[in-house]
Amino acid sequence: MKKNAIVGQSGGPTAVINASLYGIIKEGMAHDEIDRVYGMINGIEGFMSGNYMDLSNDLTAEELELLKLTPAAYLGSCRYKLPDDLSSPFYPALFEKFRVMDIGYFFYIGGNDSMDTVSKLSRYAAHHQSDIRFIGIPKTIDNDLVLTDHTPGYGSAAKYVADTVREIVLDASVYQQKSVTIIELMGRHAGWLTAASAMARKFEGDNPVLIYLPESDFDFEQFASDVDSALQKRSSIIICVSEGLSDSNGKFICEYADEARLDTFGHKMLTGSGKMLENFVRDRFGVKVRSIELNVSQRCSGMLASAVDIEESVQAGIKGVKTALEGITGMMIAFKRTADSPYTMECVTVDVNEVCNKEKLFPNEWISKNGTDVTDDFLAYALPLIQGEPERKMEGGRPVYLYRK
Amino acid sequence: MKKNAIVGQSGGPTAVINASLYGIIKEGMAHDEIDRVYGMINGIEGFMSGNYMDLSNDLTAEELELLKLTPAAYLGSCRYKLPDDLSSPFYPALFEKFRVMDIGYFFYIGGNDSMDTVSKLSRYAAHHQSDIRFIGIPKTIDNDLVLTDHTPGYGSAAKYVADTVREIVLDASVYQQKSVTIIELMGRHAGWLTAASAMARKFEGDNPVLIYLPESDFDFEQFASDVDSALQKRSSIIICVSEGLSDSNGKFICEYADEARLDTFGHKMLTGSGKMLENFVRDRFGVKVRSIELNVSQRCSGMLASAVDIEESVQAGIKGVKTALEGITGMMIAFKRTADSPYTMECVTVDVNEVCNKEKLFPNEWISKNGTDVTDDFLAYALPLIQGEPERKMEGGRPVYLYRK
Repeated sequence: MKKNAIVGQSGGPTAVINASLYGIIKEGMAHDEIDRVYGMINGIEGFMSGNYMDLSNDLTAEELELLKLTPAAYLGSCRYKLPDDLSSPFYPALFEKFRVMDIGYFFYIGGNDSMDTVSKLSRYAAHHQSDIRFIGIPKTIDNDLVLTDHTPGYGSAAKYVADTVREIVLDASVYQQKSVTIIELMGRHAGWLTAASAMARKFEGDNPVLIYLPESDFDFEQFASDVDSALQKRSSIIICVSEGLSDSNGKFICEYADEARLDTFGHKMLTGSGKMLENFVRDRFGVKVRSIELNVSQRCSGMLASAVDIEESVQAGIKGVKTALEGITGMMIAFKRTADSPYTMECVTVDVNEVCNKEKLFPNEWISKNGTDVTDDFLAYALPLIQGEPERKMEGGRPVYLYRK
Repeated sequence: MKKNAIVGQSGGPTAVINASLYGIIKEGMAHDEIDRVYGMINGIEGFMSGNYMDLSNDLTAEELELLKLTPAAYLGSCRYKLPDDLSSPFYPALFEKFRVMDIGYFFYIGGNDSMDTVSKLSRYAAHHQSDIRFIGIPKTIDNDLVLTDHTPGYGSAAKYVADTVREIVLDASVYQQKSVTIIELMGRHAGWLTAASAMARKFEGDNPVLIYLPESDFDFEQFASDVDSALQKRSSIIICVSEGLSDSNGKFICEYADEARLDTFGHKMLTGSGKMLENFVRDRFGVKVRSIELNVSQRCSGMLASAVDIEESVQAGIKGVKTALEGITGMMIAFKRTADSPYTMECVTVDVNEVCNKEKLFPNEWISKNGTDVTDDFLAYALPLIQGEPERKMEGGRPVYLYRK
């Protein structure tokens, strides 16, 4: 007997979260057990206030193909934590909406918090004999989910970092005088994206010559001596740092800048770790120094997306639908690396309860040179994930993306 | 009788300054009058200390093709102002080097200051009956050179701005709550690049909804009321501002932030106009606000370069060689737009003395809505310059660029 499916996107955008949505829609429409594929607008939060669309009818075939290559979250997103108390009235209210819409399959594309949502809903369903299947599709540029080789979204963000840092290396090398360029990369607790900057190197010893991850305690004096010896060797040095650098007391180093900083209107100024270190280097070495924050383009650059990442994200969506149709619930789709060279991967399922509210940090054994570089093992791990450039539709010199009307 | 040619790059990098270098090398090697094409390493400054290479011998055919699509300045650059006093010993010292190397043709690729160099050298040559021909090839992402329709480098930077702002618009629109995103773009005095953000719009009324150029006096209260009315209309608004915004007193607005700002170590913190306005908006409206500085990627992004810009930059180099071979000196190659749709352009020559030390600002008649937008006339002007994506050689998921050994 036919049931409807519903899918939502949650948490921060990525270049490929819509590719997973694409996979769910395509696969969902291909099975007789599924009648319609609904999309929640702005995740579970928007759905609770009645916002959703019929993805199986509202999108043309051409729009669906555009969706696959459109960055950010087409359905809109939310940051909404479900009540921990499963006896909260929130749950019966939500499940009543499911009943009215005849929902049999629920898919949520997101990171840690989204898996917490899937966990709670599947546990509530189990307690109340609901036969709705709840499946989580992973998504985060931070690559910090456990029980999966990597996460959809990381490959594209890593490719953006590698390509952009390489261009900045060229840019910073044109002058003769000594200069320091500090690039701040995303990652509050996990250094996966900052580590990706190592893929910007063209040859041994190429910039970036120093890479600092949040997994290592940051020490200003050690940093100063690292910079000092690097400046002995070459005139232009590039340093990549994570936004989440913290010292041995667990204090974010950007907080050292923020304490005393008010502008003329008395506003508190917020500063990143890159700007903080720019200041530190200028004061300590008196050399030309600049800090660059790659900012949100790391997660929303469609133009530099990885074809491998897009394809894997589609596969994750497809596997999610197949898993739900097998009667499985309370699972997250995960990636299992089956070979290194050539790289091969297969989609598997893992217990969502084992994933949510955990964080996969960058492994210590992949951090080298006293916390200023990453190992070749990391490069072997990451390089397969940034391969390939998708065929993209351009119009008037700009990429064509799908906008929600 | 054969002479040698020498070429240098000066000023800030762009995505296409190497395309002009490519054009000079290819065309130079194609003429019997020219024996070798030398390249100054780090411009005139590096050349004075003896640094140069033989571009006609040191580059393979494959490397030459890579050069065409490699961003930043392959030869390295400098910011070196020649003595105003033409009787300075600097000049005979330089011309003696020219004599020793049998230089007959001198090409300098750069912006305003570089044209000043070409002007001084050609005037010195005239006074001393030197028959060396001095030709300037324009280059600047700022598009602020006079007597040319536009400058090589602007099209690629404008394309980067249009594509990246469009991605940020998508990224900023995923949440329901009110938010303000401020994007700071390059341009200390001229608003050409900030204006390019208008090309990020997909439909009438799309973000960015507010665009502020340095050509208009910035007023905080007017800005506050602009933001206020924009927030009435939509939940997520994107504002594009030039780094060089200044008030009616000619004071850069970022200076209002810098005055009172020292970090805990007592360093002075430097802030951009975007960060300054982020603070202002947060304080005034209490909404979620973020500022993003696109930074040097605007000038060094090879991946988002414009094919039209690359081709025109090559043409500028070719025209430079042809002009010198005609016996012309003291000229800059300029672009003359010969038709709008379809867009056509031809290379012409203009007196370099009429170009240097002047600045082409964004025309007032192209600024609309009380200084918060640009007109369709600007779009008609700029859109042809961002067309096309070059075929690029990729390796291991990353672009292949030419590095100087």
